[in-house]
Amino acid sequence: MDQQSEATNIKWHHHHITKNERATQKRQRPCILWFTGLSGSGKSTIAGALEQKLFELGHHTYLLDGDNVRHGLNKDLGFSDSDRVENIRRIGEMSKLFADAGLIVLSAFISPFRSDRRMVRDLVEDGEFVEIHMSTPLSVCEQRDPKGLYKKARQGEIKNFTGIDSVYEAPESPEITLNTAECDVEACANTVIAYLKQQNIIRD
Amino acid sequence: MDQQSEATNIKWHHHHITKNERATQKRQRPCILWFTGLSGSGKSTIAGALEQKLFELGHHTYLLDGDNVRHGLNKDLGFSDSDRVENIRRIGEMSKLFADAGLIVLSAFISPFRSDRRMVRDLVEDGEFVEIHMSTPLSVCEQRDPKGLYKKARQGEIKNFTGIDSVYEAPESPEITLNTAECDVEACANTVIAYLKQQNIIRD
Repeated sequence: MDQQSEATNIKWHHHHITKNERATQKRQRPCILWFTGLSGSGKSTIAGALEQKLFELGHHTYLLDGDNVRHGLNKDLGFSDSDRVENIRRIGEMSKLFADAGLIVLSAFISPFRSDRRMVRDLVEDGEFVEIHMSTPLSVCEQRDPKGLYKKARQGEIKNFTGIDSVYEAPESPEITLNTAECDVEACANTVIAYLKQQNIIRD
Repeated sequence: MDQQSEATNIKWHHHHITKNERATQKRQRPCILWFTGLSGSGKSTIAGALEQKLFELGHHTYLLDGDNVRHGLNKDLGFSDSDRVENIRRIGEMSKLFADAGLIVLSAFISPFRSDRRMVRDLVEDGEFVEIHMSTPLSVCEQRDPKGLYKKARQGEIKNFTGIDSVYEAPESPEITLNTAECDVEACANTVIAYLKQQNIIRD
């Protein structure tokens, strides 16, 4: 037996501020807005615009995406199958802690596999995980190709690229579906805002 | 080349809410209050009491400790030397994100090694890392032995226990030193509050 016993021996301290207390302070219900979709489908763009709107409404949010996770917490991970699972696992656990802190968390990652997204959904309470499927068709994403990655994938320079030679498992019953080929940024963000009000996550 | 290129190709989106904007909304300067010290030195107790006071003052905080980290984000880690380094690295990166979210983060972990604490300090801006050394003497910690771990370590049932058969490297120039053998919970928490006001992290 080593110091591990300290981990198995722990208990919540009674003086911890509860999630409910934090939520009341922030006048919102914490949740995880989980954006999933192909590269170029608009995840980061919509999440960013939505966060801006929520901030202007006085809400307390945080946006997790490749920019602030891949170079920090998950910089030890590559793109093997097991590393991708671990990538989403850690993002899920971190999203849970941000929600526990009372925040509305926006997580924008391709997260192509149903099992990984299910794992995150199961981490939190019913109603706290809001799956937002960016259903923009592959043909549109590939035409946009903002980072030139589809071109490289088609040329074989990038392997295991989601939508080209690696599968994207679309959500079967997402809370929200957004297609940025048919709906502009403003309208997409407003669709989410309307959902959040309807669910009493934010006040009307 | 695989999809990794997506990670090397990323850039911050212009519409991200900045740390300053979040901090202004929350009327505080974000920072990491890093509690370090022996098992039983009072890290979690003081951090919990301090968080309660900050919350009552209307501040936005989050407390990271073994309770919410070891069973979640870091549940894949044990207590080998390399796992302990990775444990603190991830906690540091996560603390950085919570500070980026505008929060005052309280992190309470033994974190016995100077190099690990230095690594976390170097992740954030000058003045954002506040090292709080719980200097309660080993003899007092061992007498308290709230989890019965010192007894087990003395009996050889736990190996690599900090303070017994694994070194604790005390901070050389911590921002704050607290000895819970000489100072009660209220007074210790008030010492930190006074420091935060003096540094303009919270308003007077």
